[in-house]
Amino acid sequence: MTYCVGMRLDAGLVFLSDSRTNAGVDQIGTFRKLNVFENPGDRMMVMMTAGNLSISQSIRQLVNDFTGSSGHSIRTAPNMYEAARIMGEAVRTVHEREAKALADFGIEFNVSIIFGGQVRGERCRLFQIYSAGNFIESHSENTYFQIGEAKYGKPIIDRVVTPATSLDEAAKCALISMDSTLRSNISVGLPLDLLVYENNSLAVTRFVTVDEKNQYFQMIRSTWGQQLKTIFEGIEAPQWDAMPSPAQPVRMPLPDTVTPGSASPAPLQSVAQQFASRQQ
Amino acid sequence: MTYCVGMRLDAGLVFLSDSRTNAGVDQIGTFRKLNVFENPGDRMMVMMTAGNLSISQSIRQLVNDFTGSSGHSIRTAPNMYEAARIMGEAVRTVHEREAKALADFGIEFNVSIIFGGQVRGERCRLFQIYSAGNFIESHSENTYFQIGEAKYGKPIIDRVVTPATSLDEAAKCALISMDSTLRSNISVGLPLDLLVYENNSLAVTRFVTVDEKNQYFQMIRSTWGQQLKTIFEGIEAPQWDAMPSPAQPVRMPLPDTVTPGSASPAPLQSVAQQFASRQQ
Repeated sequence: MTYCVGMRLDAGLVFLSDSRTNAGVDQIGTFRKLNVFENPGDRMMVMMTAGNLSISQSIRQLVNDFTGSSGHSIRTAPNMYEAARIMGEAVRTVHEREAKALADFGIEFNVSIIFGGQVRGERCRLFQIYSAGNFIESHSENTYFQIGEAKYGKPIIDRVVTPATSLDEAAKCALISMDSTLRSNISVGLPLDLLVYENNSLAVTRFVTVDEKNQYFQMIRSTWGQQLKTIFEGIEAPQWDAMPSPAQPVRMPLPDTVTPGSASPAPLQSVAQQFASRQQ
Repeated sequence: MTYCVGMRLDAGLVFLSDSRTNAGVDQIGTFRKLNVFENPGDRMMVMMTAGNLSISQSIRQLVNDFTGSSGHSIRTAPNMYEAARIMGEAVRTVHEREAKALADFGIEFNVSIIFGGQVRGERCRLFQIYSAGNFIESHSENTYFQIGEAKYGKPIIDRVVTPATSLDEAAKCALISMDSTLRSNISVGLPLDLLVYENNSLAVTRFVTVDEKNQYFQMIRSTWGQQLKTIFEGIEAPQWDAMPSPAQPVRMPLPDTVTPGSASPAPLQSVAQQFASRQQ
């Protein structure tokens, strides 16, 4: 599996991906899922993929010089919306090529893409593109997209990130979100690709590949876990008396055949007999 | 959907369930998913269910006085393992009755059960039972089971709970895990049923139904979120210089048709033409 998260902040964009792929537990590999389409001074775009690796690699290859029905490629599209449409068309082109052959082997055409960036003259934009080539765009109430194993790392983002969050803070949150995912799901793995893009720089602002030796990520892993335990311990234990609950649990009634307070043996009756008696 | 978690600690058992069910966004209801089979002094068992509500209600009804192939019911089973087998047989019996008719409407026979408790003379035990009636038991390295929307609330349990955790601390952790789930997934909802069972009491030790007005849960919701933000802010921002990364992102090469630093228009070519030229 995969975990990728992309965030669109007032200050720019943050992208983080893991690099584990697996096709069964004995076929685990490391593949980079974060790809940059950059023409410094003109545009900077990032595509992160989850799903079937052969499909996402085909799309990545195709879209690099793919001309959409508008006559543009993502390299020449006048804005990010047009680029997302071209990406969607590339997904559909790969679908036409591959889906039937995959279906013959019972393999679903399954890919999801986070695609974001900036074209000169326009603001930063962030999209999520589906297997069918359709897509949605982030907005200020929904400022991030996740693909792959998204759920483990969602709560911390929901609690912390808003459009006003700085790029550094957002990158920190993305790394904590990834840490939670790594701990709870073995199919997501290091190294990580972390890319930070500052508004209007029209080139990659910062990029790091985070592996086991990365001291900042090591610090996050240990500090976050420890401090979480500290605040957990600091929260008072349930005060049962302060939670008066007139409600009772759903107690299933004791069957007549069972003596309260002791287990009387049930009559010996086979399942078949029981069935027969129920059907009478 | 549903979120339920059951934990087996050295000190006893903790069960927590939400109460939301939905069949489409316009059919949302409140149903209790935590059910108690209790015969004080002899045994205390809890069953929590996720999946298709009609199936889980059928199983709950059937298993209350269902006699398994061993001649025992869960009310008379000599131990929890035998009771779990009987629960599995009840699942299979409902499957025989219902699965075909459901399949005609494209509905999967989908149910998962957390089942735990104590029978006099034996220790506490905790099981997860699948749609096929097969089951697994918790052990000290895997001290909890979750069903339903499990992922959002998994990281905090993984970080905090061990068999040595006290019942109060485990209940607190279960409530925090539920809070994270409630925030990130609209299909999980209040009120919650929380049941705590202390070893060898052979009756429900503590039970509360937690609704919006529950002050302890209100305190957890606000305190946890606030303190999480505080420790988040306390972790230093990424030190980019301290993360030297010789690695570069995967940059897709600029096609020859594009001038570095500016977007030269791509030749106007339709998708069909492009396809044709690719196939030559």
